[in-house]
Amino acid sequence: MTPFFRSLAVIGPGLIGSSVLRRARETGTIAETLIAADTSSRVLERVRELDIADVTTADLAKAAQADCVMICVPVGAVEQVAGQLLPHMKPGSILTDVASVRGQLGPKITAILPENVAYVPGHPMAGTEHSGPDAGFSTLFEDRWALLVPPEGADQNAITTIEKLWTLCGARTKILTDDEHDRICAMVSHLPHLLAFTICDTADNLSDELRAAVLDYAASGFRDFTRIAASDPVMWRDIFLANREALLGTLDRFVADTQAMADAIRKGDEAGIISRIERGRAIRRTLIENRQA
Amino acid sequence: MTPFFRSLAVIGPGLIGSSVLRRARETGTIAETLIAADTSSRVLERVRELDIADVTTADLAKAAQADCVMICVPVGAVEQVAGQLLPHMKPGSILTDVASVRGQLGPKITAILPENVAYVPGHPMAGTEHSGPDAGFSTLFEDRWALLVPPEGADQNAITTIEKLWTLCGARTKILTDDEHDRICAMVSHLPHLLAFTICDTADNLSDELRAAVLDYAASGFRDFTRIAASDPVMWRDIFLANREALLGTLDRFVADTQAMADAIRKGDEAGIISRIERGRAIRRTLIENRQA
Repeated sequence: MTPFFRSLAVIGPGLIGSSVLRRARETGTIAETLIAADTSSRVLERVRELDIADVTTADLAKAAQADCVMICVPVGAVEQVAGQLLPHMKPGSILTDVASVRGQLGPKITAILPENVAYVPGHPMAGTEHSGPDAGFSTLFEDRWALLVPPEGADQNAITTIEKLWTLCGARTKILTDDEHDRICAMVSHLPHLLAFTICDTADNLSDELRAAVLDYAASGFRDFTRIAASDPVMWRDIFLANREALLGTLDRFVADTQAMADAIRKGDEAGIISRIERGRAIRRTLIENRQA
Repeated sequence: MTPFFRSLAVIGPGLIGSSVLRRARETGTIAETLIAADTSSRVLERVRELDIADVTTADLAKAAQADCVMICVPVGAVEQVAGQLLPHMKPGSILTDVASVRGQLGPKITAILPENVAYVPGHPMAGTEHSGPDAGFSTLFEDRWALLVPPEGADQNAITTIEKLWTLCGARTKILTDDEHDRICAMVSHLPHLLAFTICDTADNLSDELRAAVLDYAASGFRDFTRIAASDPVMWRDIFLANREALLGTLDRFVADTQAMADAIRKGDEAGIISRIERGRAIRRTLIENRQA
């Protein structure tokens, strides 16, 4: 089978980017030539040691020559990197990114798109709390969703191509608007991370003695919340700021629901407590049925 | 090696109780005779099928004849079950329970203790979201803490005996006051559960379309919070009510910390966001060092 692309360039081979490269390397179905670009020579050195790319380069203009160029840098840097890549991209090629907040990225990058270059971003809903080229693995996207957010007027063939790319990575794809995407991610990813960081913060603010005890006895609950709290601070700062509006709106609703549960507990409203817990269990069951748990 | 007790009775062989029975069965070091008591004939039938007790009975007076009687019923029922057991317990025997909220249980049960019967409760900090006799496993307590909360004036030999029992179950032990115990558990277990139930509730309150999307795309964050939301509603209602004061106090601090993070995001206070995230990561690292992650 001929690989799907002649060349695929990953800009920023971290957790997501290096997982795409590993997948492409292992299956041989994605691209004939794999290019990894990064400003960090240490990252490129590591990519060579891992042998997950055919070409490594710090030169974005060179990476921009690929048939498909995938920006995998932190969300705050996507627009700037796109601006550096686009003038060098070939007619007929496709730019994509994996930014986890869409905001105004779609219209902004579309506005600077050269003729005959398509822009079809997509966000794979997968990850771990680890980062960097060593953190990736080829099965990261299996059974996960890649949320495609093509800007208005995006080329239909390019959309189909990026869908196929993610399918080859093992993911299922869905097309959403930027706004839908950002509201969904606020709920499923950004709010949980905010709460995880905050519960650790609350624990950290306890008296020394009590904090030491919490750390000792974290099984059954607390530790589940802390896995994602190990995530990269700069990445998450950028996500929180980029999706500020949707995130704070979701947080307001969550705090209101928390206060309602607190009221039920304060008043000893047994039925109220049970009905809130039951709703949680129902959601969990659905997750298991949807193979997302 | 002679087993530690001649007989051990587990009242309510659910997740915790059946795990103790399995451990005793597998190691042979804990008790010569294992007794399982429950009001449910279905539970007792299941215990017989699993072959994790020598004697099964619905008669608490009979189970009360054991050298060590361990109450493993939901926290709201512990006092009543203790009241039924104590008049039938033998001189020199020990009553213990595994209730996850202490509240006034210690003094209340001490007040009705027959002469020459000791009461040394202990709460193993281990569990899963599953319940019932099928949910247990013999390694549940390994590397976990059993928090012993002997009431004032409890017999020192009995304390040592219950410490040894949990050590034989694979756990490490620590002695705490009731108040210390309840404040620690509010932070490490009860608050995380409240938040887990609530975030599911918030997701459930979304528009149909958005809720369906959240369920589809739950990887990376949301699903971590929902595992514990699958836990038993009646058990958790009882825990929330029993530990109302410590839990609501901890929740208040958490909500205040959440609002501070929200303010930092609203204002674009990058340093403030980073410092809160960094604290979370530090806590997580300590958990890993403490073998609790």
